[in-house]
Amino acid sequence: MYPELLNHIKRYVSLAARDEELLCDHVQPLGLKKKGILLEPGKICTGNYFVVKGCMRLYFINNKLNEHIIQFGLENWWINDQDSSLHKKPSNCYLQAIEPSELLLLPDKALPALFQQAPQLESYFRIMTQIVYVAAQRRIGFVFNQTEEERYRSFVSQFPGFVQRVPQYMIASYLGLTPQYISRLRAKIS
Amino acid sequence: MYPELLNHIKRYVSLAARDEELLCDHVQPLGLKKKGILLEPGKICTGNYFVVKGCMRLYFINNKLNEHIIQFGLENWWINDQDSSLHKKPSNCYLQAIEPSELLLLPDKALPALFQQAPQLESYFRIMTQIVYVAAQRRIGFVFNQTEEERYRSFVSQFPGFVQRVPQYMIASYLGLTPQYISRLRAKIS
Repeated sequence: MYPELLNHIKRYVSLAARDEELLCDHVQPLGLKKKGILLEPGKICTGNYFVVKGCMRLYFINNKLNEHIIQFGLENWWINDQDSSLHKKPSNCYLQAIEPSELLLLPDKALPALFQQAPQLESYFRIMTQIVYVAAQRRIGFVFNQTEEERYRSFVSQFPGFVQRVPQYMIASYLGLTPQYISRLRAKIS
Repeated sequence: MYPELLNHIKRYVSLAARDEELLCDHVQPLGLKKKGILLEPGKICTGNYFVVKGCMRLYFINNKLNEHIIQFGLENWWINDQDSSLHKKPSNCYLQAIEPSELLLLPDKALPALFQQAPQLESYFRIMTQIVYVAAQRRIGFVFNQTEEERYRSFVSQFPGFVQRVPQYMIASYLGLTPQYISRLRAKIS
């Protein structure tokens, strides 16, 4: 059994003991070293990863050959390339561990039977998707309507733990800033 | 019965006649004049609107007092303020008709019973949310990694019908450009 995962699900939906067993039968635990890669461009993303411990990032290389980070995944979050998984098309992203990480893989192919037998799990994933969608919408609003300094400050105040755990150049990549800009801003703030 | 809605759902999931009736019992048709408003800041968004005919926009007024368009809704799309609806908190957005529109309201309060009796509908909304989430992720990638000209050109090639139907200043607002920039670009292109 996977207590972190089950506890997270039970924050959003109720789950019968039978549903828990059913889910855990399909889940595959895996460990990843720092910089270990789970997905790379050209491959199809075939599952969703729950982060039990560690930190992941989903990123692509843009046409200026810079890394652009789409999403981070910390403890108790799911991370995958939804575009590739949903449309069964090759990814253009890397899914990589920033720290040594413990993950639980839930393969996409298990979902139809799982959702039919335990509809609560489909509710849970609907709610998870709504939450990340709302976060993405907010992020778009921030990008268009905040100055670079406001964007950095609101990220730091929303996710204070991140700044300690994640290299500065990755935060810059996520926020669409340069590492040099963040360095200057941090010097100014302190 | 509402054929446009049912046909749209049946593109993604199968629906028994019983499920169709159940859904239609909860749906409320409504008409809106051009510029008619369904949601405004301070109000809680309590449902989701399916666009049968017309065009809607969800926008907020940013701190520079400019309109920023979060989302458009054309025929066969759902539109609402998911942030307000999901977290039951007052919206900071307006939901407004750009054209005279025919909509179907599905109230949030109908969803728990509906999903329990017809789990296929929960699958449908999970898939809808995944699709808009992927679109939002792509939009973030575009904002960070395309020049302003690339952003406008890719929007026009992806949604050619839009440019005819939607005032230029709204497209500018959606793309984070100024109307003057789009005018100059269109003059250059033609």
